[in-house]
Amino acid sequence: MKIGILNECFLNEKHLSRLKALGEVVIFENTKSEDEAIKRLKGVDIAIIDGFICPPTAKVLEGTDKLKLIVLPHTGYFMIDMEAAKKKAIKVANAPGFSKQAVAELVIGLMFAVNRKIPLMDRDMRKNPFDSDPSNVEQQNRYWGFDIKGKAMGVLGLGRIGSTVATLALGLGMKVIANNRSPKTMEDVEMVSKEEVLKRADVISINVTSGSDTEKFISKKELDLMKPTAILINVDQSKQVDTEAIYQALKEKRIAGAGLDQVAGLTKDHPMLKLDNVVFTPHAGSSTNESFRENLPELVVSAIEQFIKGSPKNLVN
Amino acid sequence: MKIGILNECFLNEKHLSRLKALGEVVIFENTKSEDEAIKRLKGVDIAIIDGFICPPTAKVLEGTDKLKLIVLPHTGYFMIDMEAAKKKAIKVANAPGFSKQAVAELVIGLMFAVNRKIPLMDRDMRKNPFDSDPSNVEQQNRYWGFDIKGKAMGVLGLGRIGSTVATLALGLGMKVIANNRSPKTMEDVEMVSKEEVLKRADVISINVTSGSDTEKFISKKELDLMKPTAILINVDQSKQVDTEAIYQALKEKRIAGAGLDQVAGLTKDHPMLKLDNVVFTPHAGSSTNESFRENLPELVVSAIEQFIKGSPKNLVN
Repeated sequence: MKIGILNECFLNEKHLSRLKALGEVVIFENTKSEDEAIKRLKGVDIAIIDGFICPPTAKVLEGTDKLKLIVLPHTGYFMIDMEAAKKKAIKVANAPGFSKQAVAELVIGLMFAVNRKIPLMDRDMRKNPFDSDPSNVEQQNRYWGFDIKGKAMGVLGLGRIGSTVATLALGLGMKVIANNRSPKTMEDVEMVSKEEVLKRADVISINVTSGSDTEKFISKKELDLMKPTAILINVDQSKQVDTEAIYQALKEKRIAGAGLDQVAGLTKDHPMLKLDNVVFTPHAGSSTNESFRENLPELVVSAIEQFIKGSPKNLVN
Repeated sequence: MKIGILNECFLNEKHLSRLKALGEVVIFENTKSEDEAIKRLKGVDIAIIDGFICPPTAKVLEGTDKLKLIVLPHTGYFMIDMEAAKKKAIKVANAPGFSKQAVAELVIGLMFAVNRKIPLMDRDMRKNPFDSDPSNVEQQNRYWGFDIKGKAMGVLGLGRIGSTVATLALGLGMKVIANNRSPKTMEDVEMVSKEEVLKRADVISINVTSGSDTEKFISKKELDLMKPTAILINVDQSKQVDTEAIYQALKEKRIAGAGLDQVAGLTKDHPMLKLDNVVFTPHAGSSTNESFRENLPELVVSAIEQFIKGSPKNLVN
């Protein structure tokens, strides 16, 4: 049994020992090209491949001789050529939910950051420290937020991440309303239409499954349904939100604010970067030690262990 | 019965109607000087006075003729001359806890802001938008945080605000350990010594009662007890934390980060303003609509109603 690690997946000595107990382990520097992958996969039975860095294309898969399992150190698997995998009888496992806690916590963090204007106050303080004066109307308009307790969190997409967002919001004393494309229930969560979430929520979190049918899931029509006091948070894929529509809504203060972890077409000179009622993060939902150094390698190693035991887990084909 | 409003306390028409049902209401522009106050308090039975703007000194109190009650639109009452109030049989009511939810929520907001580097990422994104790369070690060091769930929140001072912080932290799935100077218990909260809170907590929130005995409550000695991965949040008075000690600890990365709502002696050229592992807010704990536009006027008006009914509330003398 030969196990090939073609890309970084944050394995520590303990994880490597578990793999070495199963067979020969070969570790390569970051693999990036098809040719490199084909060469490195020769004689390998099980491979860890980062599909975002080194996509297992038809060419790569057809070039393998012994490969039985690919383990992806991430959740998405759209980059795999499933036809070729089927033809070669190669199974693929992913790492579902390795960062759901981190992503959901970033939603909550962005909610507070936008509502309480924390990055804006921090920027202003760094220019010229000051002490707030509650009776100063200009400061009220610039810095005041609302109490989160008792407000309505609206979750669009009650999957792995969305339901974690709901749990955290309930824990903070919020009401939670949600919409999911397929029927779903969750304790203490009121299931309503997408339109009703948009109309009623004080904070909206987008957590729909990625796919072409969710492109521009939030556009002008949806933003127009929101309360002018409401906040939109997107830690989902950038394409879910229409960049121009959200820019206009924020600029004209038709919504109170937004926390955006990814924005499609956000170039260096985009005027949205000058707005005060938005907080930007760089696709950082997963960015915690637990996501990458604990959950991810655990899922990768256990997927290999289980496959060898004959009770595979997290297979996507 | 004459009720005098000497300073802004965010009364709306409904609040004013309730006061007008009790007697004649006179409203003054913001009162700032002793002489102004003395003149305006003539014939007044009950006065709303902001003690931070217009302190009820001995001179002011001795100059009153009919005054029976002062209502403060804030919590602190150290600025009142209690001897003079006693001599003139003037009662004083404050507005306890009007912003406890807002302050506690800022603690939680700052925890996420510091841990997940939200203001830092927002600053960097505004300079040059980018997409995070988990395998980039430089980015890991700059932006990665930890999952909040399962970590220990340490609350120093389990009063009105501290216990609200504890409730929110429990709601987020944190463990809570706390210290209070007088014996106190709270469900699901482990009471330990101040030293143990400092040694064990992943996030520390300072919520001690203000007073001279809490000056430099956190200094080098206390910071040295903290884990290098831990975060300190102070929404309490600035004097509780030794500015030079926290600056050195942050600069030398002896603690992971800090969220500081007030910093003693933070001048425009202080080198702390250049550090990336700190988030500054301008004494903005109370800054929500609910604090000032709902809770505060409700406490002020009901204190007057109850006093007239003969069952006074929130008296501090």
